[in-house]
Amino acid sequence: MRESSQSAPAVAEAEAQPRLNRRQAAKVRTRQKVLDAARTLFAERGYDAATIRDIAKGAGMSTGAVFANFQDKAELFEAVFSEEMEGLLADIRTAAAAEGRVLDRLSNGLTAGYHRSLDHLPLMQAMVARSWFQPEDADLRSRAFVRPLVEAVAELLQAGVREGELRQDVDLPLLARLIWDVFISNFRFAAYDNWGIEELTPHIRKQLELILSSQLARQ
Amino acid sequence: MRESSQSAPAVAEAEAQPRLNRRQAAKVRTRQKVLDAARTLFAERGYDAATIRDIAKGAGMSTGAVFANFQDKAELFEAVFSEEMEGLLADIRTAAAAEGRVLDRLSNGLTAGYHRSLDHLPLMQAMVARSWFQPEDADLRSRAFVRPLVEAVAELLQAGVREGELRQDVDLPLLARLIWDVFISNFRFAAYDNWGIEELTPHIRKQLELILSSQLARQ
Repeated sequence: MRESSQSAPAVAEAEAQPRLNRRQAAKVRTRQKVLDAARTLFAERGYDAATIRDIAKGAGMSTGAVFANFQDKAELFEAVFSEEMEGLLADIRTAAAAEGRVLDRLSNGLTAGYHRSLDHLPLMQAMVARSWFQPEDADLRSRAFVRPLVEAVAELLQAGVREGELRQDVDLPLLARLIWDVFISNFRFAAYDNWGIEELTPHIRKQLELILSSQLARQ
Repeated sequence: MRESSQSAPAVAEAEAQPRLNRRQAAKVRTRQKVLDAARTLFAERGYDAATIRDIAKGAGMSTGAVFANFQDKAELFEAVFSEEMEGLLADIRTAAAAEGRVLDRLSNGLTAGYHRSLDHLPLMQAMVARSWFQPEDADLRSRAFVRPLVEAVAELLQAGVREGELRQDVDLPLLARLIWDVFISNFRFAAYDNWGIEELTPHIRKQLELILSSQLARQ
């Protein structure tokens, strides 16, 4: 009987988890509805042209209800941005998890990132555009969401060093950041040259080969 | 007598040049005033938040006078963008003109680009931001202004191949575009980490070394 395998302490723990009452659950749903509407509008119009008024309209609620959940448009954008970066990180990590050469792991990870983000390319474009022209405090916060992604790249490179595939003197921060910048830059081909995953996959791989080949340990 | 060295045909040629009458000269000045005001406002607010109304105000003229020179904000932005790219190209070309290794020439050229653009960094940021979120037709046109810059990088690489410094099988378009993307990405450090020319100069050089070292011909 599988059910009985759940031990008494586990049950107690599960019951100790905070449970949402009806009101809290409604609040969570409202917040999510606002986020969905915001994501759609940022993708359609970009940050500046998306108004709280239209986001509220898209969510089917009053601007007051939006402001009950988010202080302003910047906070709303940040929430969308943070969700997106978390998803991207998860997908890259999963695809890069398999054992193998660092080139393959990076290439698989970043390709998975393209896979995910091509689904909502205009949102990605709006995010990159905003990252180039935003107040310094907003940049500080959005950078905190991007950091784990650059670190994930650095960790893959670090594994390559540890396993003797890459040189011991690799400049990890320089290399990780370079790879991240190249990964992001390629979205322009998707946005304006109609590149799909078929074009992006071999392209990022060629770029990685070029970037990494001087960093390989002499065999 | 130096004056007499000007031969009759040269004088005739000079006189055949179109000369601006007073009205035409005023039109040129007006256009330049609008462009200057637009440049200032795009740098301050970014593309979306800059209005024709405020650009006109900045230039000290009516919106009608602005529209007599430019069809809309997009055309105005393009004129500013095109001017900027032309200046950047000239500075990169000049600094990269000296004989030398391709690494030095590229490094000198791109550093000169930073020198120039750091003077009006917010404008540069506004331009990159816009390049990520603009209608396809605007992208097509703005890309025409950027192409000569990527080609200038490709020409420098090509010279390196010709002179036996770089491998014969270098993927020129891939490499030139990669270098350009990295050059642009670095402006974020200037924008948000207060990097000046002292930080950017060694950084782009390290990146170029990393990117080019696998592309060197075996000596």
